[in-house]
Amino acid sequence: MQSEKTFVTGTLHPVEVGMRTLKLSRTYSCGGMEFSSLPLYDTSGPWSDPSFVIDPEKGLPPIRDTWSFWEGKSVVSTTATSSARRARKALDGGGITQMYFARNGVITPEMEYVAIRENQNLEQWISGFSRGSKKHIPVTPEFVRQEIAAGRAIIPANINHPELEPMIIGRNFRVKINSNIGNSALGSSIVEEVEKAVWSCRWGADTVMDLSTGANIHQTRQWILRNSPVPIGTVPIYQALEKVGGKAEDLTWEIYRDTLIEQAEQGVDYFTIHAGILREHLPFAEKRLTGIVSRGGSIMAKWCKANKQENFLFTRFEEICRILQAYDIAVSLGDALRPGSILDANDEAQFGELKVLGELTKVAWQFDVQVMIEGPGHVPLNMIEENMQKQLEYCHEAPFYTLGPLVTDIAAGYDHINSAIGGTLIASFGCSMLCYVTPKEHLGLPDRNDVREGVIAHKVAAHAADLAKGSPVAWLRDELMSRARYAFAWEDQFNLSLDPEKTRESHRSSMAASGRTDKNPDFCTMCGPDFCSMKKSKEATAQK
Amino acid sequence: MQSEKTFVTGTLHPVEVGMRTLKLSRTYSCGGMEFSSLPLYDTSGPWSDPSFVIDPEKGLPPIRDTWSFWEGKSVVSTTATSSARRARKALDGGGITQMYFARNGVITPEMEYVAIRENQNLEQWISGFSRGSKKHIPVTPEFVRQEIAAGRAIIPANINHPELEPMIIGRNFRVKINSNIGNSALGSSIVEEVEKAVWSCRWGADTVMDLSTGANIHQTRQWILRNSPVPIGTVPIYQALEKVGGKAEDLTWEIYRDTLIEQAEQGVDYFTIHAGILREHLPFAEKRLTGIVSRGGSIMAKWCKANKQENFLFTRFEEICRILQAYDIAVSLGDALRPGSILDANDEAQFGELKVLGELTKVAWQFDVQVMIEGPGHVPLNMIEENMQKQLEYCHEAPFYTLGPLVTDIAAGYDHINSAIGGTLIASFGCSMLCYVTPKEHLGLPDRNDVREGVIAHKVAAHAADLAKGSPVAWLRDELMSRARYAFAWEDQFNLSLDPEKTRESHRSSMAASGRTDKNPDFCTMCGPDFCSMKKSKEATAQK
Repeated sequence: MQSEKTFVTGTLHPVEVGMRTLKLSRTYSCGGMEFSSLPLYDTSGPWSDPSFVIDPEKGLPPIRDTWSFWEGKSVVSTTATSSARRARKALDGGGITQMYFARNGVITPEMEYVAIRENQNLEQWISGFSRGSKKHIPVTPEFVRQEIAAGRAIIPANINHPELEPMIIGRNFRVKINSNIGNSALGSSIVEEVEKAVWSCRWGADTVMDLSTGANIHQTRQWILRNSPVPIGTVPIYQALEKVGGKAEDLTWEIYRDTLIEQAEQGVDYFTIHAGILREHLPFAEKRLTGIVSRGGSIMAKWCKANKQENFLFTRFEEICRILQAYDIAVSLGDALRPGSILDANDEAQFGELKVLGELTKVAWQFDVQVMIEGPGHVPLNMIEENMQKQLEYCHEAPFYTLGPLVTDIAAGYDHINSAIGGTLIASFGCSMLCYVTPKEHLGLPDRNDVREGVIAHKVAAHAADLAKGSPVAWLRDELMSRARYAFAWEDQFNLSLDPEKTRESHRSSMAASGRTDKNPDFCTMCGPDFCSMKKSKEATAQK
Repeated sequence: MQSEKTFVTGTLHPVEVGMRTLKLSRTYSCGGMEFSSLPLYDTSGPWSDPSFVIDPEKGLPPIRDTWSFWEGKSVVSTTATSSARRARKALDGGGITQMYFARNGVITPEMEYVAIRENQNLEQWISGFSRGSKKHIPVTPEFVRQEIAAGRAIIPANINHPELEPMIIGRNFRVKINSNIGNSALGSSIVEEVEKAVWSCRWGADTVMDLSTGANIHQTRQWILRNSPVPIGTVPIYQALEKVGGKAEDLTWEIYRDTLIEQAEQGVDYFTIHAGILREHLPFAEKRLTGIVSRGGSIMAKWCKANKQENFLFTRFEEICRILQAYDIAVSLGDALRPGSILDANDEAQFGELKVLGELTKVAWQFDVQVMIEGPGHVPLNMIEENMQKQLEYCHEAPFYTLGPLVTDIAAGYDHINSAIGGTLIASFGCSMLCYVTPKEHLGLPDRNDVREGVIAHKVAAHAADLAKGSPVAWLRDELMSRARYAFAWEDQFNLSLDPEKTRESHRSSMAASGRTDKNPDFCTMCGPDFCSMKKSKEATAQK
């Protein structure tokens, strides 16, 4: 890729926001401005910085430590259980979350960082953008603060993850995507998992969930965190379950609590917690075609039935929040009852749980804990909008983070496409982050190529939703792409696409297969030189 | 695939409608009915019938000839120019189109054929289906007749294509998909093209457009038609252009007319004709970011400007209709001014042409010529619905047939996904057929794997739209799939998916990579045996 790592410096804090600035082969004029380069939002951190020598053993540089924002606000944890690092926690157990600062009128380095990042150094373009009647203004640190104070956006950023490049999840910002990694008991090795985490960031994943369930779960996570520029999420119940030999009924609050603290001290940025599935919901789930398809949800359902008690994640939720607030870990309230088939979509089980998630949101906010809400699942296209509406209504506008939705059950092998279809629609309605789905969904553990396919499919979805929502920076990239296309500027087309390697190789191999050796052709092999509509269109325009 | 070719016989006509009936490994109970097999809509014709010995030299059996419907209504063409076959045309130049019969209260064999086909031998299920308040009734031949008489649906079926298995395009029927083939000057050989045509039907293409532009264009088409069970469409201006050495300005009405007749006698089922682009539209197109991106459109624009005359496809449109009605060729009114970038979407050029297409629709209907309307193109998600609304309004409910829409310009390499996103949405609003886009769009000529990927992506889109529209047969397939999934009936899952080969292989290779040899595992390697939510959900349900 013809790009270089560039940095924009903050004015309030000593933040240096990395971007990937694409060099264009010529100057394009868009809306009265000239562009010979384009700064792109970059999720790959130091991994795409050629000037930086990376040592995975050492991990990435702890950039957030240089901002010196936590001095006097946090102390070395005294509960440190298992981590080799010096873990930090809030001095008095609270008062350090992004939401706390936001509510108290303080703009943190993280807030300034994400404001700069969202604008992509294109403030002038954004201010001048006109499409529709809406007036566009660049994202300001103050706007970020307001959105976080209102609970409409979150910055998942554990104070023990200093390697993090902060990002924001909320519907008034760019749509984000999450990718999952995880060595299931049958799957891959630790080194592979670290590589996979970095691999998905390279293709554009904004956050990564480590869903590892096999051996070495603690060490795997440690490596991933120390090498990850993006927020890492986990589902702590998985590790807790391993600690009780896989028997859900043997889980206890104490084991779970210790697992939360263990992961908190490692630096996990957000936890998925299935606190909304209650005993009263289970009869509804049992009437379903596909029951409970959330791993965490099925574990808690089994625990509730075996112990004849209410879900301890619900009954202990305030205690959980006290832990989260001490490290600034965001909670992703899990949708244990998401539909696993379109026949189960939008049913009593699903919406019953969603209401509980709304109640829990208010509880978390009392502790200044940042919240997002997880969503479905399998939902036919015509029932997607209701999901978004109900989520906004029940959950007080906390950001929505959905898995798909998948709009049919029969697309196995192509579920990344299935998910991108539903994901684009729900994101255009206001969903803030899409969890990726790979072509292996429902079939097996994804490999590297599946991860790449899954990430790019959801980058298409997120970007298409940004366009639908009128994002000026999204529209600029499309305009540059189309100008490059009309100009037959192939290198620019490759570099402006979501996967330059693939587009470059597709074009090259098609030309080669046709025996063409043109250096900079004004056609492609799809229509050939005599039938290129763009070429003919330009000829017609040139004609008097 | 565990399926066999089965046939349903007509009651009004001697039609035998082929289906692919899937054998399930067990009996599933859905909505009070038992299913141990499922008849599927099958686009592959005799190519998937193992009892049939196919000789590509001879072509497929001319099944429509056995219906003896044309006797006394048609004669051997006297204008036969170049075809080796006995070509037929209407006795008095008209009175043989499906629309003519429909308007005169006659149910043709083709109408009965498509009615049986749409129901998939599932009339009982359809009648009993309840989802929402809508009452469902199976498709009847009389309903087909009414839809065709109203112009809301078409059966593209040239009387010179007796090998055809009729299908219907209209928004009150299953959403269809078209795939394109064509040896561009740089591309593939004739044998490859015939194979590619059959190849896309195998994966589910409902119609095929032969966009060949290179040498041997006539012979290529002849081979494809004689071996195609699905309707074949062409863009006759391409061949006409070859006849004048590629110089658009040298095109004449006479050359074009003779090309129409040549292809009509070969049996082409529908023609794309760019009759709606007028000189008055050109200044609007010239203001665009990407000008004219329709091949046929750019040819006509060049002709108009060079000759300083109005588009002859427009001025001669009545003469064109007289030819079409003599063979019952449907016209697909080309959208020469479809947007080629999202910045150009829904502009004056596009909607100006669409209005003209609406006027031409009325003209064609005066000749009982069946009409569909081609649509965009590149359109951001939030502007798609307006396309469908305007098309219905301007074009009097004639079926809409769109290319995508692509919801972003930057998805090169993944444009099949891009197109499936927009396609699902517009089909859910009422678009009748989606033209596929492959991963090579904007980059080069698709190969076999690109065709397969493109077809399946759009099968996902079409099926998802059918679900959104409440199609009972679509819902049944998803319900069976999810029942098979919850039962860990892997073979049924593979067979019920849109690409059984891929799903079977994905599952197999994932298991093998994990070193598992379980014969019929109750888990997959995505979560492993200890974390399978469906397994745990069933255990919880079983628990007292």
